[in-house]
Amino acid sequence: MQFEEEIKYLKEIIDSELMDLFKDKTGYQDKIFESMNYSLLSGGKRIRPILMLKVCQIFDDNYLRFTPYALAIEMIHTYSLIHDDLPAMDDDDFRRGRLTNHKVYGEAMAILSGDGLLNYAFETMSNYALNNSETIDDYRRNIWAIKEIADFSGVFGMIGGQVVDLLSNEIDMEQEKLRFMYECKTSALIQASTVSGAILGGGNELDVKRMRDFGLYLGLAYQIRDDLLDIYKDKEINKVTYLTFNNIEKANEEIMRLSNKAIEILDYYDDDKVKFLKNLTNKLINRSY
Amino acid sequence: MQFEEEIKYLKEIIDSELMDLFKDKTGYQDKIFESMNYSLLSGGKRIRPILMLKVCQIFDDNYLRFTPYALAIEMIHTYSLIHDDLPAMDDDDFRRGRLTNHKVYGEAMAILSGDGLLNYAFETMSNYALNNSETIDDYRRNIWAIKEIADFSGVFGMIGGQVVDLLSNEIDMEQEKLRFMYECKTSALIQASTVSGAILGGGNELDVKRMRDFGLYLGLAYQIRDDLLDIYKDKEINKVTYLTFNNIEKANEEIMRLSNKAIEILDYYDDDKVKFLKNLTNKLINRSY
Repeated sequence: MQFEEEIKYLKEIIDSELMDLFKDKTGYQDKIFESMNYSLLSGGKRIRPILMLKVCQIFDDNYLRFTPYALAIEMIHTYSLIHDDLPAMDDDDFRRGRLTNHKVYGEAMAILSGDGLLNYAFETMSNYALNNSETIDDYRRNIWAIKEIADFSGVFGMIGGQVVDLLSNEIDMEQEKLRFMYECKTSALIQASTVSGAILGGGNELDVKRMRDFGLYLGLAYQIRDDLLDIYKDKEINKVTYLTFNNIEKANEEIMRLSNKAIEILDYYDDDKVKFLKNLTNKLINRSY
Repeated sequence: MQFEEEIKYLKEIIDSELMDLFKDKTGYQDKIFESMNYSLLSGGKRIRPILMLKVCQIFDDNYLRFTPYALAIEMIHTYSLIHDDLPAMDDDDFRRGRLTNHKVYGEAMAILSGDGLLNYAFETMSNYALNNSETIDDYRRNIWAIKEIADFSGVFGMIGGQVVDLLSNEIDMEQEKLRFMYECKTSALIQASTVSGAILGGGNELDVKRMRDFGLYLGLAYQIRDDLLDIYKDKEINKVTYLTFNNIEKANEEIMRLSNKAIEILDYYDDDKVKFLKNLTNKLINRSY
């Protein structure tokens, strides 16, 4: 399959499975199914679940059976966006051209929908782990993947980054703190994807370490590219970014440096196993969307 | 040990371990450790973790090793209170005589602290499961307990109940819906405690089913007792409760009926194993605090 074709193929699988999650669910609480679906099915690019599945495929051809983990990571990503958009946080009315969750369902429901999606991510993963493990190694890899995804999502990962973002202002932001924030806010959930993919696929400790670094570099490069794209958007001029401390030339150099490190890690594996991931890395850091 | 002495003993263990969770944690995000601690260490009665540990003890004398699960359930309970108190939800300024989390740390931090505690519950449980399992049965029981706790906390459990509470008003509330709401809002997290206790301790399918029912009846009786106590508090007169549909005599009868069913389940076990739980059941449904 060609690269773009394969992205489309995986995205369709993920979209279709996400659509099925709460499809036939009814009950007195059914408004929350509608609200969670509204945000879950709002045209995300599914980068994290695609990454997770393709890293998994390096180690296991039968990788699609781990799709529930890919969905769980997308649920965590979606909940973080719903809570980020709330009036008390970024106070955004629109996301991806549609009204944000709280503008449609109200703040209270948006809070509960975020909680519900975060919680459902763990319901989904633990249910899969319980019903699809036979050997000790199966159980161990499943619980290890859940632990890594939980760690990367929490106060020492993604949430930690959101806290720094919330509390920092132009005056006290410094390069080291910005780097920490980028590692947590952007890289952590990408690392959750690459690391869990390696674990579930059967990678060893070294593979997992490599995929931890791959996700780190990819996430940081992606974030600095995002900073560059923001210049042309003419918005949030008060936000501290990589470009507060560095000029455009340095930013482009740093993106190249980081993406080279990411690609170097992929070079440890057979080229046909990682061709897609190399293409994806290049696509993500050169993206103009 | 006498009953009250044992409550004190267990509460001290739980309080002390909760205090240690984020004790030495530092970083750019350290405000969230303070905020999570503020709510986590605000004088809760620790009913759910105590229940979890004492049910566990029916099946395993070495039950205290499962304390991380008791802490996780308390974290989930605490996060739900932080989010419940938010202006968009119940808009409460005080809880247990202290300012609510968002009154001290602001709404954004309160949202993130709730998210952080929910997430950390799963970090804690999965970390324990990964590092304390040797046999397939160890792994299976750990992952099963995580799955049950996740299910009882989510949109088909506690969060589902909060949704119904949020969306219902006096006009469309009906007895069946109220019962659903009580099962989700109050019983579910109590069932998470009793069920995970039985699973981790080594109970069989029948034991787990019994503890599921025990938690259900205990939770419902506890909630109706709460409704009765609210009458004398003179607040939230608009809230629909069990007493909207039934008089005080019927409410007391229902509490007796439910608590008898709870005690009947405990009668399947040796009296010395469940004496504490019987005392706790009686204490909870007759409580005047």
